[in-house]
Amino acid sequence: MKIALAQLNYHVGNFESNTAHIIKNIQIARQNGADLIVFAELCLCGYPARDFLEFKEFINQCELSAQQIAAECNDIACIIGLPIPNLKPEGKDLNNSAYFIADGKVQAVVNKALLPNYDIFDEYRYFEPSTEFSCIDFKGKRIALTICEDLWNTIENPLYITRPMDTLIKQNPDVMINIAASPFAYNHDEERIEILKDNAKRYNLPLFYVNHVGAQTELIFDGGSLVFDKAGNLVDELPYFEEALTYYTLEDNGSITLNQPTTIKAQRDTDIAQINNALVLGIRDYFHKSGFKQAILGLSGGIDSAVVCALAAEALGPENVMAVLLPSKFSSDHSIQDAVDLVANLGCMSETIAIKNVTDEFEKALSPQFKNLPFNIAEENIQSRSRAVLLMAMCNKFGFILLNTSNKSEVAVGYGTLYGDMCGGMSVIGDVYKTQVFELARYINREREIIPENTIVKPPSAELRPGQKDSDSLPEYDVLDKVIAEYIERRRSAREIIELGYDEATVHRTIKLINIAEHKRYQTPPILRVSPKAFGMGRRMPIVGKYLA
Amino acid sequence: MKIALAQLNYHVGNFESNTAHIIKNIQIARQNGADLIVFAELCLCGYPARDFLEFKEFINQCELSAQQIAAECNDIACIIGLPIPNLKPEGKDLNNSAYFIADGKVQAVVNKALLPNYDIFDEYRYFEPSTEFSCIDFKGKRIALTICEDLWNTIENPLYITRPMDTLIKQNPDVMINIAASPFAYNHDEERIEILKDNAKRYNLPLFYVNHVGAQTELIFDGGSLVFDKAGNLVDELPYFEEALTYYTLEDNGSITLNQPTTIKAQRDTDIAQINNALVLGIRDYFHKSGFKQAILGLSGGIDSAVVCALAAEALGPENVMAVLLPSKFSSDHSIQDAVDLVANLGCMSETIAIKNVTDEFEKALSPQFKNLPFNIAEENIQSRSRAVLLMAMCNKFGFILLNTSNKSEVAVGYGTLYGDMCGGMSVIGDVYKTQVFELARYINREREIIPENTIVKPPSAELRPGQKDSDSLPEYDVLDKVIAEYIERRRSAREIIELGYDEATVHRTIKLINIAEHKRYQTPPILRVSPKAFGMGRRMPIVGKYLA
Repeated sequence: MKIALAQLNYHVGNFESNTAHIIKNIQIARQNGADLIVFAELCLCGYPARDFLEFKEFINQCELSAQQIAAECNDIACIIGLPIPNLKPEGKDLNNSAYFIADGKVQAVVNKALLPNYDIFDEYRYFEPSTEFSCIDFKGKRIALTICEDLWNTIENPLYITRPMDTLIKQNPDVMINIAASPFAYNHDEERIEILKDNAKRYNLPLFYVNHVGAQTELIFDGGSLVFDKAGNLVDELPYFEEALTYYTLEDNGSITLNQPTTIKAQRDTDIAQINNALVLGIRDYFHKSGFKQAILGLSGGIDSAVVCALAAEALGPENVMAVLLPSKFSSDHSIQDAVDLVANLGCMSETIAIKNVTDEFEKALSPQFKNLPFNIAEENIQSRSRAVLLMAMCNKFGFILLNTSNKSEVAVGYGTLYGDMCGGMSVIGDVYKTQVFELARYINREREIIPENTIVKPPSAELRPGQKDSDSLPEYDVLDKVIAEYIERRRSAREIIELGYDEATVHRTIKLINIAEHKRYQTPPILRVSPKAFGMGRRMPIVGKYLA
Repeated sequence: MKIALAQLNYHVGNFESNTAHIIKNIQIARQNGADLIVFAELCLCGYPARDFLEFKEFINQCELSAQQIAAECNDIACIIGLPIPNLKPEGKDLNNSAYFIADGKVQAVVNKALLPNYDIFDEYRYFEPSTEFSCIDFKGKRIALTICEDLWNTIENPLYITRPMDTLIKQNPDVMINIAASPFAYNHDEERIEILKDNAKRYNLPLFYVNHVGAQTELIFDGGSLVFDKAGNLVDELPYFEEALTYYTLEDNGSITLNQPTTIKAQRDTDIAQINNALVLGIRDYFHKSGFKQAILGLSGGIDSAVVCALAAEALGPENVMAVLLPSKFSSDHSIQDAVDLVANLGCMSETIAIKNVTDEFEKALSPQFKNLPFNIAEENIQSRSRAVLLMAMCNKFGFILLNTSNKSEVAVGYGTLYGDMCGGMSVIGDVYKTQVFELARYINREREIIPENTIVKPPSAELRPGQKDSDSLPEYDVLDKVIAEYIERRRSAREIIELGYDEATVHRTIKLINIAEHKRYQTPPILRVSPKAFGMGRRMPIVGKYLA
């Protein structure tokens, strides 16, 4: 039996384009002699469709798409993922399902049993878990078809009390197929390979695994679909961050023959290379899927905006990136020069708009209220917010989308001005720690100097008052980033982090800063997710709570 | 047996104050001869604790609080709610539990079975559902103790496949006790009464139901705890929007004697009266629980900011409310006068800061880029954003929290400026339709004119260009609000709404406006929830999605 794996980039809610894309791949696979082509989980509607799933019309559209696809399935079978109504009166209204389609008709329906409902996942919000499991017979082979998380229950302390494959294996299947929607995090590819390898070995079956590729707002799918033989050997690994259509012959003895050269990685990409590729895809899909073309950002001469500018230029083309220099009286000469150099290196558009007259006018307007009170955070924020007003005016006038340039360390400790530098349609590096931003800059410069060396080596500064440095008010980033990660990603308390050997005062101060910034993070733009725990939909904290000290 | 019901206002994560408050009520109830005092679901940590629940230290704190409370339980028993570790290796790490404490020790543990995971609820994110159910014997009575949603499964097409009371009833209990965290929506009190009445009748048992009162960021708990006899008659209804501690004797024949006069409502409060009370409590708890005292807002002379100002004055005292008039060249004289009149009627603080010089300076700064392009939304938004910069500067200088004054109709169709009038620490009326805002103004004026009559009767206008009216760019609010409600609250598609009889062009235009404002709503402040479907944590939509047309 010849099996095709289709690793495609879908668009949430775009039934017309998703369906056309699926049908085109069916036609190609049929021409290439495939017996079966496998698409990803919930591919008809895209993932995550979120509360679109509460609209009956949305579910109807999925079924209509499935019918169009079924009409194409002659001389080839296909597996597609879609939400379907749960016909039982009890339980949630939907199932997260797969259709097995052959001879122009839906031959079998498989419903997902293990519904992820942690971090960014909300599947139990919509779907009823399946409790019945049956294999599918096709061309003399018996297929154990499961959906994503259904295979992720082989670990210690599993999240679920059932394991679908333990039922399916009793029906003596010949092969496992798993359709997935498994989003990128820089450490997730290896975990995915381990879990799936473990399944192939545990059940002594070949395994075909198909993932999404492409970004849906903040979630980035990296592809990397996988094929294992029944001994658990990795037989193929599809490319990352791009579409692919590959073919395999499942031999009668259960072995697998590749119909094209393997693309298994000789060595894993570094975390930073993966993050770079993910962010470029994240920016590109955000713009293209929302019908926008051009990005704007404020370029300070610092490393954060430089990295975002370079990533945007790679994603959209430098001709579609507008960098705006917005110097104040506290901007250093070297910052302006560094920004100018970057623009020259990238070849992007640029404008310069000085903010001094605007901030002076704000201070004049407020002088009856502020009287002679000393310069403080109020005046600092006026600068940052004046820049935001100017950038947003450019967006409104010319149709740009503003890119936010805050990094994860800043977002964590609230080192940023709400309605100022925290503005933007999307946050590019809000899930990238400051220490990683430096690595990213080096990676971007791997072939030639794009980001000026001076931008990388000078001490970070917000330049909102004379001679300001980040390290005046924050711990050094190499310590700060580790403490943040312990608190945010591993949910350790201050006491536990101090027990790991970190300075007590630093830990308490950092956690306090993180906690009092919760109200700011509530209003930040969507953040491209590249770590296992990003700020945004995957981390849900009360605002008016008393925090652990 | 004498049972006390404690309807209290907790604070998420504030173990010290929650525990002290519970212990104080135990002591009072013991002095008053109660055998048992019942507190609400998850009262030790507050509701919703959200991802605090992922911190082991947070769960430890709950257990420590329970131990302190247990030490107080001599000569009185109590029921408290808290999260506890799930000791089984499979499944989620926690249970949503109730402790039955007597003689200084935890005598029984009950785990919740039906975990709400829709709208604002995320319980399956944290908790494993219970599958075992046992009654508790105390002083010759057998108690069927359940937690909130456990009783909400008597309807047609239920969300769950199990019903805990069907198991418990076989153990022949004498009484049902249900501890809850049931947030306010203006139509929820009657539904709650119906569901619980149905339970009492169905199982032929008296029922004691204890709810939270008080606000936790956007969620407002209205109290209204309930007591039913076994025929399903409402025997008592605790006050709404305030704390209460009441006593009942459960007689040996199963009947219930009140130890104080009943507070059953002779008639239901109007929706608008309920919304008014909910918003006042929501503002007050947001400020007090986060340690802030003073609110600031921009007062335009329009009805939205007038209503928010009046609500804030009631919640915090007029001496803690700063109203800022920020006239532009497009502000009409009557608007300024209406704002001045409101300030005088309320007795709140006020300042006037003209924005003309600031907006002129922005336009001057942008003239090299904007050249001679015509005045459009870019310049309109500069006005709105300049006001926000001034208000936020006042916050930063003096420690105010900015109140957002956008109503639900505006938030829905994106009729507001991101980083402009959409700013604020909290949104007071973001879940109140424009048509309801008018009703709220009339309600606020029920005893004397607080909101100037002219503010109520003049046509709504954003006053961002000469002679502008809302109705120039939006359908009339009485139609608009109904179309929005069909789409947002009932998830009807354009086709379905048109079939209800609404004008086709209006429906398509409204839904398109709602959809393209998704990215704006992502960045709005938390909105006090008063309806069954508010924007915010209870409605989760993709941003880069293709929407149903």
